[in-house]
Amino acid sequence: MNPYFSFELIHECSQSGARLGRLTTPHGVIETPCFMPVGTQATVKAMSPRELWEIKTQILLSNTYHLYLRPGHELVKMAGGLHSFMGWDGPILTDSGGFQVFSLGDLRKITEEGVEFRSHLDGSRHLFTPEKVMEIEAALGADIIMAFDECVPYPAERDYTEKSMHRTHRWAKRCKDSQLREDQALFGIVQGGVYADLRADSAKAIADMDFIGNGIGGLSVGEPKPLMYDMLEVIDPLLPKDKPRYLMGVGSPDCLFEGVLRGVDMFDCVLQTRIARNGQALTSRGPLTIRNAAFEKDFSAIDPECDCYACKNFSRAYVRHLIKAGEILAARLLSIHNLRFSLALMENIREAILNDRLLDYKKEFYEKYGLSQ
Amino acid sequence: MNPYFSFELIHECSQSGARLGRLTTPHGVIETPCFMPVGTQATVKAMSPRELWEIKTQILLSNTYHLYLRPGHELVKMAGGLHSFMGWDGPILTDSGGFQVFSLGDLRKITEEGVEFRSHLDGSRHLFTPEKVMEIEAALGADIIMAFDECVPYPAERDYTEKSMHRTHRWAKRCKDSQLREDQALFGIVQGGVYADLRADSAKAIADMDFIGNGIGGLSVGEPKPLMYDMLEVIDPLLPKDKPRYLMGVGSPDCLFEGVLRGVDMFDCVLQTRIARNGQALTSRGPLTIRNAAFEKDFSAIDPECDCYACKNFSRAYVRHLIKAGEILAARLLSIHNLRFSLALMENIREAILNDRLLDYKKEFYEKYGLSQ
Repeated sequence: MNPYFSFELIHECSQSGARLGRLTTPHGVIETPCFMPVGTQATVKAMSPRELWEIKTQILLSNTYHLYLRPGHELVKMAGGLHSFMGWDGPILTDSGGFQVFSLGDLRKITEEGVEFRSHLDGSRHLFTPEKVMEIEAALGADIIMAFDECVPYPAERDYTEKSMHRTHRWAKRCKDSQLREDQALFGIVQGGVYADLRADSAKAIADMDFIGNGIGGLSVGEPKPLMYDMLEVIDPLLPKDKPRYLMGVGSPDCLFEGVLRGVDMFDCVLQTRIARNGQALTSRGPLTIRNAAFEKDFSAIDPECDCYACKNFSRAYVRHLIKAGEILAARLLSIHNLRFSLALMENIREAILNDRLLDYKKEFYEKYGLSQ
Repeated sequence: MNPYFSFELIHECSQSGARLGRLTTPHGVIETPCFMPVGTQATVKAMSPRELWEIKTQILLSNTYHLYLRPGHELVKMAGGLHSFMGWDGPILTDSGGFQVFSLGDLRKITEEGVEFRSHLDGSRHLFTPEKVMEIEAALGADIIMAFDECVPYPAERDYTEKSMHRTHRWAKRCKDSQLREDQALFGIVQGGVYADLRADSAKAIADMDFIGNGIGGLSVGEPKPLMYDMLEVIDPLLPKDKPRYLMGVGSPDCLFEGVLRGVDMFDCVLQTRIARNGQALTSRGPLTIRNAAFEKDFSAIDPECDCYACKNFSRAYVRHLIKAGEILAARLLSIHNLRFSLALMENIREAILNDRLLDYKKEFYEKYGLSQ
């Protein structure tokens, strides 16, 4: 038995088959399915750690690529690791930088060894290999670390996708072999693009490597949502049921439901804080562009059903004023709300699973939110 | 006796003559001397009302000119007034817009009636008269409202300064005659530039009008600090001792000491939050530019002697990282700290007055901060 990590399945919804779990990490217990706010540069944009606790964040995600470049993983290590550096004592997951370096396009070159890339900050040259990424993630010190993978774009040729997938598997093995700390849970990542048979091959290969948890990468990269859901259905029976599954970079309300219904336990997304900085709110009646003139004299809460600090204390009219005036508090209040909205949605999803009524809850939520079933 | 406002003198420092007071307003009691954070656009930049309470803010200042233009005083009135609109239930003071409209230069024209100006936002034409400003400030609903005055720039000719001062006195009378709400304390404003005899004339004229409190305007507008201190010394014996005195737009640590030593009870300043957004911190050992490379690996608190959230939870290295990465949390943490630093300084000044040792405390503070006496 691993002294640092465990994953228990608590309940399976008799109506939907969705699962409720409990993931124990060195920095705390996470009820799953869960949503992870993203703190790319060692801060969730516009939020303080205290506010993240208050909205009941269970675990944060932070980005290896960004922290490696700035302030540098060695500096974070000197600070006592990411938890200490950013003042967040709860669980943290770091990605592997794979998604970011592959997004660099012309600035990167892939070989069997790894990926050579140029920094988007200053153009300096760097090499990420599975071994190097394990070293960086060990220095950052997150509770959960992701293996270095190639995130294939959409669309991509089957031939390239297959070759890349096999390389991702070889890299996953190299990550496992070079992992430096046993108090970090290493997750492998399933790739395979939108090809069902490749996804199946990848799920089996990654499952066979016996990671503590399994990531699902390369989805929500531009493909139609039904295609993503198809891939999740292919993977679902092939990944071990007794290990957590993390669908990377996915977190809109409909995707959260559809993911949970297909066996996913963990999600992350930058949408919530990005649209907040753009003056938009997620609400129980659907998304609202608070900066619109329609809200000029609307003295109701951003979402009257929400229990967050922003909704309990301020009006849409005030938030709209802050947006128009270019005030930082606008981004703060909408970030608090949008994150709390998503975390509360996951709380409700967990409760619905426990009460064997996830499909009913989905129907209720979709109707109010304005989504078709 | 006024049922809404009272000002009691609690103690006079036997060492310095500085005074400790207590100003009661409809939204709470203010211990003086006090420092007021500035919430220009119905928000103290980067701060939430909750954070303002936490750092022990007693009273906020907000700007009539800005709120009149955006979102409009009528909208604020519809929201139930500024307290309700911005979610701050403590005392608020609004300025009169005088300083802002006179700063518009070519965009404004002064007559006996008032000031015609063009909005800095959209170029639209507006007229501020004493009566109009009283109407706007009544709609905003602050506890303390300032009379409409002309803030003369530095340097200015004596002749112009004198004419302007007399107009400010006539406008002060018109403000008094047109005040709409008795639950707002109207303060007159002493002008007179840097001419001692004009300052004396103005202090007498404003004192004679028997306002609830008296503002001191037109200082800290570019003149050397000793000249400002001279003007305060001229005014000190001429303003009634039993009424609060507010030195407008002044709030650097040395000016706080020098003002208190010359009878000032209230201060406001945008410096604290402005330099915060520029990566600078006020500390007990003097100001620090946290964005400098010197702090890259400095894991100590912004100010190890400070009790604020930023200093208790984060390091200079982390704040520097946030600054370099362009993260909102940098401005937040430095704003919390710089404001708390100034509020704590005022708390210490009040304690020193109570203990008859303000000159000793000033000496101790200046030595540590690196100021010459």
